[in-house]
Amino acid sequence: MKPIQVGLLGIGTVGSGVFNVLKRNQAEIMRRAGRGIEVTMVADLDTARAQSVVGEGVRVVNDARAVIANPDVDIVIELIGGYGIARQLVMEAIEAGKHVVTANKALLAVHGTEIFAAAHRAGVMVAFEAAVAGGIPIIKALREGLTANRIQWIAGIINGTTNFILSEMRDKGLDFDVVLKEAQRLGYAEADPTFDIEGVDAAHKATIMSAIAFGTPVQFDKAHVEGITKLGAQDIRYAEQLGYRIKLLGITKRTAKGIELRVHPCLVPAKRLIANVEGAMNAVMVQGDAVGTTLYYGKGAGSEPTASAVIADLVDITRLHTSDPSHRVPHLAFQPDQMSDQVVLPMSEVVTSYYLRLHVADEAGVLAQVAALLANAGISIDAILQREAGEGEKQTDLIILTHDVREGTMNDVLAKVQALPTVLAPITRIRKEELA
Amino acid sequence: MKPIQVGLLGIGTVGSGVFNVLKRNQAEIMRRAGRGIEVTMVADLDTARAQSVVGEGVRVVNDARAVIANPDVDIVIELIGGYGIARQLVMEAIEAGKHVVTANKALLAVHGTEIFAAAHRAGVMVAFEAAVAGGIPIIKALREGLTANRIQWIAGIINGTTNFILSEMRDKGLDFDVVLKEAQRLGYAEADPTFDIEGVDAAHKATIMSAIAFGTPVQFDKAHVEGITKLGAQDIRYAEQLGYRIKLLGITKRTAKGIELRVHPCLVPAKRLIANVEGAMNAVMVQGDAVGTTLYYGKGAGSEPTASAVIADLVDITRLHTSDPSHRVPHLAFQPDQMSDQVVLPMSEVVTSYYLRLHVADEAGVLAQVAALLANAGISIDAILQREAGEGEKQTDLIILTHDVREGTMNDVLAKVQALPTVLAPITRIRKEELA
Repeated sequence: MKPIQVGLLGIGTVGSGVFNVLKRNQAEIMRRAGRGIEVTMVADLDTARAQSVVGEGVRVVNDARAVIANPDVDIVIELIGGYGIARQLVMEAIEAGKHVVTANKALLAVHGTEIFAAAHRAGVMVAFEAAVAGGIPIIKALREGLTANRIQWIAGIINGTTNFILSEMRDKGLDFDVVLKEAQRLGYAEADPTFDIEGVDAAHKATIMSAIAFGTPVQFDKAHVEGITKLGAQDIRYAEQLGYRIKLLGITKRTAKGIELRVHPCLVPAKRLIANVEGAMNAVMVQGDAVGTTLYYGKGAGSEPTASAVIADLVDITRLHTSDPSHRVPHLAFQPDQMSDQVVLPMSEVVTSYYLRLHVADEAGVLAQVAALLANAGISIDAILQREAGEGEKQTDLIILTHDVREGTMNDVLAKVQALPTVLAPITRIRKEELA
Repeated sequence: MKPIQVGLLGIGTVGSGVFNVLKRNQAEIMRRAGRGIEVTMVADLDTARAQSVVGEGVRVVNDARAVIANPDVDIVIELIGGYGIARQLVMEAIEAGKHVVTANKALLAVHGTEIFAAAHRAGVMVAFEAAVAGGIPIIKALREGLTANRIQWIAGIINGTTNFILSEMRDKGLDFDVVLKEAQRLGYAEADPTFDIEGVDAAHKATIMSAIAFGTPVQFDKAHVEGITKLGAQDIRYAEQLGYRIKLLGITKRTAKGIELRVHPCLVPAKRLIANVEGAMNAVMVQGDAVGTTLYYGKGAGSEPTASAVIADLVDITRLHTSDPSHRVPHLAFQPDQMSDQVVLPMSEVVTSYYLRLHVADEAGVLAQVAALLANAGISIDAILQREAGEGEKQTDLIILTHDVREGTMNDVLAKVQALPTVLAPITRIRKEELA
């Protein structure tokens, strides 16, 4: 049987990885797939560089549409990124009857519903294991491995850049700005790191996981997105003293009122495995009603880890491309006519516990005032830590861990606490998740 | 479309879980699978108890063959266990053209090759996610999620009973026998715990993972199997002082000379995630050449976690049961005509590093003698720890961590060390894995 022919749109870091791994592990992959899989055509604006990566045997063009139009190409891999031309090309590939593999989380988180609907109509597969958590087969675990379960929640470290920065801040006691520069020097953060450090990349991935976990359309516009730029080394230190680590988590949760979908820094008990995921590594926790808590860990980015996910999709498609579409796993895990219309809750309706850091006057009665305001709103206190003021120092830090409370309630109380004359600086508030 | 009809052979802990989860999550599972999945017939020797579990709507018989003979049953779930009647029934179900789901690791580790060959001939699926690591979708990760990779090694905590015992021994500083009794009282260990504590259960699971990772037949008879019964609380304590934890690992590794397949207690660096897997939880590390290190964590046993895996298999089969067999994932991950004949290495050829505990006379020159014997055999020392002898005490413990060495070489040297008059008790030797 002749090999499955693959056309590659964009051959940067991940594209090169796909080409190299497919070639290096050709025999092993064919022993599994029962058929060869070959990249036979590549589109890239820099054709000279592209040709130098793939060598003479592969046709290189600068026009992606020539790949899509090639009747010999069975599968198109989109590795261009972004919502612009990538969206256009993916839609054209689908309409041309090509199966598509993409690592483009931004595209799927925003336009996934439209793309999957088009794929369903055209009878082709759009596979996206590489879009979330790089080489970790988390999409497969959610869509296929845990089908018995009502999934309750997912919480993941799904952005390596921010986890690297947080690990370094804790390890070395440094502030965010210093570590970001270091991360950029080492290649762990991009020159413009906004998407990573502001939580947008993690929110794209959380959005995709939320949809396939709960059977809803992708709803990136409803996600609450908060990055790590305002975290100070002192909060990491105080959290440590209380038995917690601070991680940037992508969280989605099923509640009686609706779905939570949020990315923000989070205190996590230090004894949880996920609290010990260091550096640029990723990890995703999934809680299902039957299976309990599971965790998936690995490299969330990089050339070959991401290629591992792209190629797994190629093998799946190679097995199923001549099959009846009913034999395939639905794009969003649930049958297209069985999607749920559960709403994403506004952040004010989300219930979590909190870490609060108040910079206060070091005088009698301050804690009593703050505690009274919390108590009046029905918020109970789990733990308190007060830094001992230095000699002659008139100010100190008061750290409070609360039990669960609706965020709207917390916002109201914090406005009152902030207005106290003894509270001397803006309050720092970080959410806390027990992940039990 | 009428629901897929499932026949259950054996309705104990796992069978009840399967029945209950299928019923409770009926709607959710159907939204995913596109079709209902129902247990319509159950065979169990205790028909009264079985009927009380499933209620009036389900036919209960005491003859498993009546389930296999029922033309309405599409899938047979074997939950009897063992190699005896279970093997016979699985073969008969296959010959009757039924798809089979089984959680029976013993059966597959010993007779898997024959069973999968029969299934291939009959064009039916035999699915076994529940056979390894309970609810963790590790079979799916290995067979499908990591198909791009040449898998280099797998190392897993795949027996909850022994991990519970080791966790308790470390936590409370107790000896094996004491903790075993506690584990039996709590239901974490069976009345006859031999299969668990001697490593046999873990070896069954390691054998299955080895086959699907490397594309070889199952070769349980070649596995090296060693349990935890000889571990003392002192070794756990010394390991801790050196920065390690002791875990019972199932390990399979690809080397230039052949495949390693072994279960034994193992020192693991305390900073690795897997070293921090506590209680009855399971975790499997998989190292692939493209993806790097990944880890999968969750409950390895219990009614509903195991049911989660069984039902995931039911959903997979529901999707693919009318498909051409070429559209399905090969039973052992590799195409049946593409199996490798790589040999499993004898233990003497395995290369690892070691923890050695010598009970020695507390006198000058002992370390020099031991070190000389190791050096002569080309074994280098990584770390040494000598317990300070108590006042008036004439004996002490000498702990040595070595670098990598062939086990055969180590055996020869240890015979010589043991023969030294200053070595006063049998040497304790535990293998060490860095898992980097």
